[in-house]
Amino acid sequence: MAAVEIKEEREVGAKAGGEEEEQIVNPWEVSAKDGGKIDYDKLIDRFGCQRLDQSLVERVERLTSRPAHVFLRRGVFFAHRDFNDILDAYERGDKFYLYTGRGPSSEALHLGHLIPFMFTKYLQDAFKVPLVIQLTDDEKFLWKNLTIEESRRLARENAKDIIACGFDVSKTFIFSDFDYVGGAFYRNMVNVAKRVTYNQAVGIFGFTGEDHIGKVSFPPVQAVPSFPSSFPHLFSGKENLRCLIPCAIDQDPYFRMTRDVAPRIGYHKPALIESSFFPALQGENGKMSASDPNSAIYVTDSAKEIKTKVNRYAFSGGQDSVEKHRQLGANLEVDIPIKYLSFFLDDDVELEHIKKEYGAGRMLTGEVKQRLVEVLTELVERHRRARASVTDEVCILHYALFSIDVHVVN
Amino acid sequence: MAAVEIKEEREVGAKAGGEEEEQIVNPWEVSAKDGGKIDYDKLIDRFGCQRLDQSLVERVERLTSRPAHVFLRRGVFFAHRDFNDILDAYERGDKFYLYTGRGPSSEALHLGHLIPFMFTKYLQDAFKVPLVIQLTDDEKFLWKNLTIEESRRLARENAKDIIACGFDVSKTFIFSDFDYVGGAFYRNMVNVAKRVTYNQAVGIFGFTGEDHIGKVSFPPVQAVPSFPSSFPHLFSGKENLRCLIPCAIDQDPYFRMTRDVAPRIGYHKPALIESSFFPALQGENGKMSASDPNSAIYVTDSAKEIKTKVNRYAFSGGQDSVEKHRQLGANLEVDIPIKYLSFFLDDDVELEHIKKEYGAGRMLTGEVKQRLVEVLTELVERHRRARASVTDEVCILHYALFSIDVHVVN
Repeated sequence: MAAVEIKEEREVGAKAGGEEEEQIVNPWEVSAKDGGKIDYDKLIDRFGCQRLDQSLVERVERLTSRPAHVFLRRGVFFAHRDFNDILDAYERGDKFYLYTGRGPSSEALHLGHLIPFMFTKYLQDAFKVPLVIQLTDDEKFLWKNLTIEESRRLARENAKDIIACGFDVSKTFIFSDFDYVGGAFYRNMVNVAKRVTYNQAVGIFGFTGEDHIGKVSFPPVQAVPSFPSSFPHLFSGKENLRCLIPCAIDQDPYFRMTRDVAPRIGYHKPALIESSFFPALQGENGKMSASDPNSAIYVTDSAKEIKTKVNRYAFSGGQDSVEKHRQLGANLEVDIPIKYLSFFLDDDVELEHIKKEYGAGRMLTGEVKQRLVEVLTELVERHRRARASVTDEVCILHYALFSIDVHVVN
Repeated sequence: MAAVEIKEEREVGAKAGGEEEEQIVNPWEVSAKDGGKIDYDKLIDRFGCQRLDQSLVERVERLTSRPAHVFLRRGVFFAHRDFNDILDAYERGDKFYLYTGRGPSSEALHLGHLIPFMFTKYLQDAFKVPLVIQLTDDEKFLWKNLTIEESRRLARENAKDIIACGFDVSKTFIFSDFDYVGGAFYRNMVNVAKRVTYNQAVGIFGFTGEDHIGKVSFPPVQAVPSFPSSFPHLFSGKENLRCLIPCAIDQDPYFRMTRDVAPRIGYHKPALIESSFFPALQGENGKMSASDPNSAIYVTDSAKEIKTKVNRYAFSGGQDSVEKHRQLGANLEVDIPIKYLSFFLDDDVELEHIKKEYGAGRMLTGEVKQRLVEVLTELVERHRRARASVTDEVCILHYALFSIDVHVVN
């Protein structure tokens, strides 16, 4: 049994940093060979996860009696591990809890950072389940040139943006590792660490001998929010609750490791629902980079900045001249405004209309970009208003008081 | 400066587990080649620590206005690192704090386990300083075949034996890692872990790729009680307090690492005062082993058991026959009763008398053993009475309430 487990989770899993690989996807690097696109089908094969197909989307709609989120019905969340088991249990009347997180490495979030939180909010609303959100300020201190205090400050600032996504106050617990790690959480960390050899960690995460031992020590910290017993103030008496983790697929290595260890220490394997990456304005081959503010739309951007960025930097699949465009139409496959609209324009009918008209050359790039600017401006403005209402008091409430209310899981 | 630091603490330091070495001394193994004695002079050279000489002992007596502890004046504690600096600071009127600990791997302690605690009690009384005692139940869980709950239980049981040594209730904080790690303590752990590469950890501790990452993660846990900021409830506002660690010399690798890191993260290097190993009843070449109860005197042994063990198993330097003994005298160098008396018989005059008479053959092994049985029986009986008075309530008081009183350091 154990051998089978390891095979499923690990041998099929990606080796981090292998030179011969066509694409590298791990928590610290996402890149395709020769600057090409990430091949998500290959990633599913290599990681050994499952494709999230249409029948599963329909099952979610049936069970929750509401339309699937845009990110689900348009394949932004495209892969999973054991999501079926979560739905089976849910159908039998068993609840589960959600776990997601963020490494607080920058003060301002961009749209890509919001994706898992927007989707997690939908899952929480649809299934009415508790949620824990881990801010890995310890990870960012370990990997970046940050002080402990700066990492903690970024965690607090990011928490406000996360809270602004509108989670159910009575069911959400947000914590930073530097402030929360201890007690049952620490005991679970040590319990996980005892089951992973250094060689296995190297296989999963690509550590080298020159990496500091802080990096080697970290994976169990991200693993243990998958276990209800790490939150005795939330889940006391419900240690058997299942966990569903919405995240980008670059986090998969952490949870391959977690799923390998879980049954050996008496816990359910956490289920996963995994997203593709949100593209840079410059195109899917480009990278959103904190050092290039023009590569992404930030939630702090003004309406004017959004307009300028979209018009100036959003890679277009339209043709060079209006004449040629009218004749050939846009290449929707590489068009960033279309890609961004497919994330954030909720109206399926309108999106299909735009794609059809634009693809046929009847709609021009400028018109599509203008619609995108409207959609993003509204989104960012709404976020800004929500964030402004997150006072330090509300923030403390989320950090601390949520933990009490969320106790009532069923 | 940094380069010099590393040279002092690390290059001179022992490589753990090197095959070519004549003796292996690290936290998990103490053995001399071909079953010989540990060569402590070589150990001092190899570790790069300093010999604790007579002038230092006399300085302690002057500063504390009391005779030095038996363990100090008879060289049980024989090596140190920067103990002079601690005394310099003390002489200027600066306090320090003591840090010692135990890995709770067994329920019953033997006399060897008591040595650091008996000595630490003396230091606390003589210098009137606060003390933190770490029970590394996480370490024992990681290295032994124990459950987390069993490790925690052993920590609580061992705490009672430690409390029975009679520390100053108002100045002592005892904690188990599984219960205390978190907050500022965890932040210090991560801060240390960031400054030690995996290769360096392998050099210091001899880890292999097949060791689990729990082992690799552990050294910072034992390092950070050296920093006052790990105990904000004790030392708030006194983050600059120096730390003195009494311990057996096999723990030196942890603190070589700690001393290398400390100045790089803004802390004083902890000072050390280090003991030799307490010999097995079978002789200095033997090992006290939990699997052989006859290799050691346990604090739970009855008077009858002590008598039997000493008479039957304590290796004697006396001669085979009374005639030969009267003629040649005992070999005190290998005689365990004499060795044990030199640890536990406080009276210098009587000890010298016994050594002289026994060495000259005028005193017989049986007589020396009888005196040892008296001394040990009294010691163990006293310990047993003290431990019996340590109720769970007192234990909780030590774990929790001490932490409040100890706040008044000066």
